[in-house]
Amino acid sequence: MVLLFTPIHPIHAAKSSTKPKNVIFMVMDGTNSDVLTLTRWYKGKSLALDGILVGGVKTYSLQSGITDSAAAGTAMATGFKTSVDMIGIVPQLKGGKVEAIRPAVSILEAAKLHGLSTGIVTTSPVQHATPAAFTAHTISRNGYDDIAEQQVYQGLDVVLGGGMVSLLSKKNTNPYSAPKGIGSNMPSYRKDGENLLEEIKNNGYSFVKAKSELDAVKKTKVWGSFADIDIAYEFDRPTLAPKQPSLAEMTKKAIHLLDKKQTGFFLFVEGSKIDWAAHKNDPVGMISEILSFDSAVKEPLYFAKKNPNTLLIAVTDHGNSGLTMGNHNTNKSYFKTPVHQFIDPLRKAKLTATGAAALLKKDRSNIKEIAKYYGLSPLPEKELKRLKAASNVELELAKQMAERANLGFTTLGHSGEDVFLYAYGPGKPTGLINNTDFPSYISKFLGITSLDRFNQSLFVNATDYYDKKGYKTKIDLSNPHNPLFIAQKNEEKIEYPINKNYKIVNGKRKKLSGVNIYVNHQFWISKK
Amino acid sequence: MVLLFTPIHPIHAAKSSTKPKNVIFMVMDGTNSDVLTLTRWYKGKSLALDGILVGGVKTYSLQSGITDSAAAGTAMATGFKTSVDMIGIVPQLKGGKVEAIRPAVSILEAAKLHGLSTGIVTTSPVQHATPAAFTAHTISRNGYDDIAEQQVYQGLDVVLGGGMVSLLSKKNTNPYSAPKGIGSNMPSYRKDGENLLEEIKNNGYSFVKAKSELDAVKKTKVWGSFADIDIAYEFDRPTLAPKQPSLAEMTKKAIHLLDKKQTGFFLFVEGSKIDWAAHKNDPVGMISEILSFDSAVKEPLYFAKKNPNTLLIAVTDHGNSGLTMGNHNTNKSYFKTPVHQFIDPLRKAKLTATGAAALLKKDRSNIKEIAKYYGLSPLPEKELKRLKAASNVELELAKQMAERANLGFTTLGHSGEDVFLYAYGPGKPTGLINNTDFPSYISKFLGITSLDRFNQSLFVNATDYYDKKGYKTKIDLSNPHNPLFIAQKNEEKIEYPINKNYKIVNGKRKKLSGVNIYVNHQFWISKK
Repeated sequence: MVLLFTPIHPIHAAKSSTKPKNVIFMVMDGTNSDVLTLTRWYKGKSLALDGILVGGVKTYSLQSGITDSAAAGTAMATGFKTSVDMIGIVPQLKGGKVEAIRPAVSILEAAKLHGLSTGIVTTSPVQHATPAAFTAHTISRNGYDDIAEQQVYQGLDVVLGGGMVSLLSKKNTNPYSAPKGIGSNMPSYRKDGENLLEEIKNNGYSFVKAKSELDAVKKTKVWGSFADIDIAYEFDRPTLAPKQPSLAEMTKKAIHLLDKKQTGFFLFVEGSKIDWAAHKNDPVGMISEILSFDSAVKEPLYFAKKNPNTLLIAVTDHGNSGLTMGNHNTNKSYFKTPVHQFIDPLRKAKLTATGAAALLKKDRSNIKEIAKYYGLSPLPEKELKRLKAASNVELELAKQMAERANLGFTTLGHSGEDVFLYAYGPGKPTGLINNTDFPSYISKFLGITSLDRFNQSLFVNATDYYDKKGYKTKIDLSNPHNPLFIAQKNEEKIEYPINKNYKIVNGKRKKLSGVNIYVNHQFWISKK
Repeated sequence: MVLLFTPIHPIHAAKSSTKPKNVIFMVMDGTNSDVLTLTRWYKGKSLALDGILVGGVKTYSLQSGITDSAAAGTAMATGFKTSVDMIGIVPQLKGGKVEAIRPAVSILEAAKLHGLSTGIVTTSPVQHATPAAFTAHTISRNGYDDIAEQQVYQGLDVVLGGGMVSLLSKKNTNPYSAPKGIGSNMPSYRKDGENLLEEIKNNGYSFVKAKSELDAVKKTKVWGSFADIDIAYEFDRPTLAPKQPSLAEMTKKAIHLLDKKQTGFFLFVEGSKIDWAAHKNDPVGMISEILSFDSAVKEPLYFAKKNPNTLLIAVTDHGNSGLTMGNHNTNKSYFKTPVHQFIDPLRKAKLTATGAAALLKKDRSNIKEIAKYYGLSPLPEKELKRLKAASNVELELAKQMAERANLGFTTLGHSGEDVFLYAYGPGKPTGLINNTDFPSYISKFLGITSLDRFNQSLFVNATDYYDKKGYKTKIDLSNPHNPLFIAQKNEEKIEYPINKNYKIVNGKRKKLSGVNIYVNHQFWISKK
């Protein structure tokens, strides 16, 4: 891949270069291009994204033709293809074969080392795969506890999203969360006994749990945890979790706060739950979250137009669900199927399938009411029967909506196609690129000459590093939740606790540039 | 839609503007973006198209969220949204409602009036919807007889493709055609008794029926009709129709011949049968035709790089089939499904589903052999049974392949999503555009100031025009296949025969700028 860059206002180069440079990297998780077309029809006018389409992106992982969010997030964050589940961890290849694995610096970490402020905004738990890939390094996306702890010690300026449970060791629910949806691999309370909420406060953050509290915040650092797990779908929020902020509101606030610092900033924003709705083949949920994401895109786009030293990238990490306008209903009638036959059924829904199903009584006595919330009204006897008998009401609701709205789906999983690329601003990528190309574009824009240089200073193998210096080293696993690297020579004892951004030299903390990573029986530490 | 143009070599503008300008407009009919990703994996390296991705295109028709090829072709050729089946015919709107219909000039016709040479190259009959939309005007895409006759009188310099039956009133088979596939709305011999083959020869064309004959042609005009109906799928051609040229070979020859004339040229090229394979959900056929199309793209791309005054556009007219990498097999395993599990089954196929089924004996006694041609080998008893029992063997072959290759499909019809846009050269469109935007981009590039001016001179309502001049007018329908417009005043009798490019003034032919169109009980004629 040859990297081509459009000139950064060559005439005013000297002047511009003194201004802070900002990058806003936005991911709409699990979005095939068809959903965008459908959402445009649903909305009845253009999307903000429509104005900044610039190319396409290849999404495959090292392991498969179809990526998961962890491998895709890692590719976009670090520039390396990797395998399923890996968060900021990439293979060390020898002769084309994976010989070992190692953490790789993310473009967010690099931006921070380069002097920029940093932030993440999500509608999922902030510890979820994609934001995690920009802010943490773990061998499994399900290592929520480790991810949460690393994020707390990353020194991010703004963290807004869900995921409060991963900060706490015992129940301390966010009272504003929506009724719990049906999900898999959802995080639970911490197993290591730590209270990261205290740590967040000790580290100088304002900690907020509701939109009104966020509104009152005047400066960084700020940590907003608006749900135990995820923020409600945009269509469900007013009904089920009205105290939560929207993605657009969080994004706007994040930009406002980060811009105040005058350092330039790197902001990661994810519309996380397009993917979640796609996994349920729920077109209403997918549209809800595309509209939410597209509203959020307006904020950095407005900012970038006022601040030309800003690069905005918006992209999905992979397709999901294979949604199409057109299905077996329209095999022979597609050419005479007016737009309203796709849109009208969808517009009747007040809640997503997840939102509606969350209100279902155990005995399903209110199933007709639930179906109506989802727009399935009137409900013929046959469809009512199917709902009553369904093993999974959410999936059955979604299936009936797809039939009514002439929408097709091929899978409950991800799909492997190239996806649309959206970008705005100087140095933006164009054409067909690989998902591993993003860090190069962003580095070049920011004037970071070598990401690899950061890798060599931020993540050195602790054992090798101290062995060479004549230390005796060991990894202490006596606390299984908190492995500790220890190096000793003469009177000096240096300890590196897992996931923290400091070392302890003879009992005294010394801050480091990055967090201490323990993966695959090895500690990786920052030189400084 | 605001039209933005990249500058045409501003420094050398004076010099460049004297060089002939060329436009090559390529359509891969019925292609969703997923097929391109899959084909890249199948090929094992980048496609030519990968290097020229520039944006996306909205494809809907006036009537539906999902277009047919006629309405899409008309939109791309004329700049107007229209309804299903219409070929170069667009609505006259009044207060947002369709009041009447009229022919609209195509960008190919405009280019010709502007002085450029013109050509069309297809793998379908040249009379099929998309090429027809650039070269003819009929109320129905199934009006093959009218389309064929208009094309013969359009004065095109190069015509290469299938569709020989529409030139002839009685059987005179092209001996090099492949065994007939299973298709709908296929044209048959002409009903008007005319022998257009004679007319083609009278009009100064070399008429050729095989690749070897095409190779021998040294100059325009040339008309190549390489099949009664369609040219064989690329994968089937060596076996079933080895005398036919490939799309790439036709494209290369067309460019070579058109460029010789030094007038500049407009060439339309269609990979027609990606769509046909998609309608059968045959991934092998789809890959066959994408590879064929992509090879053809290399020719104008090579030419455009040597001749910078060339604008190349490549696009599909609409999605079809909803193919995805990933289906219900991979609901829970997509992230660990290596590429070879998608590709290996496909690579076993020697023929497309259509090609294999064409060799099936009536008693299906060779069904195992047929399945093997299609790569379904070994064939478990259960799958053999399904094939023997299938009402449509082609569809069943394709279905079994999709299962083996982990591919999903949502429909046997078209789909409504925005599609990728590919372009190269000065004045190329970028970003998200509508399919009606192409003529503006091309006009601007060629220096055609107003397409509408051509509309006002090329297609005037004959009755209105001569009524105003004091003529008595009538439309003579005594020969139902050959309506005739007649205007009379004093001694003068002027006749306009349908589909011809001349009028007859007192028995003497006078050539016109365009062809005479009869639609919806009205004649539309050229002023000059």
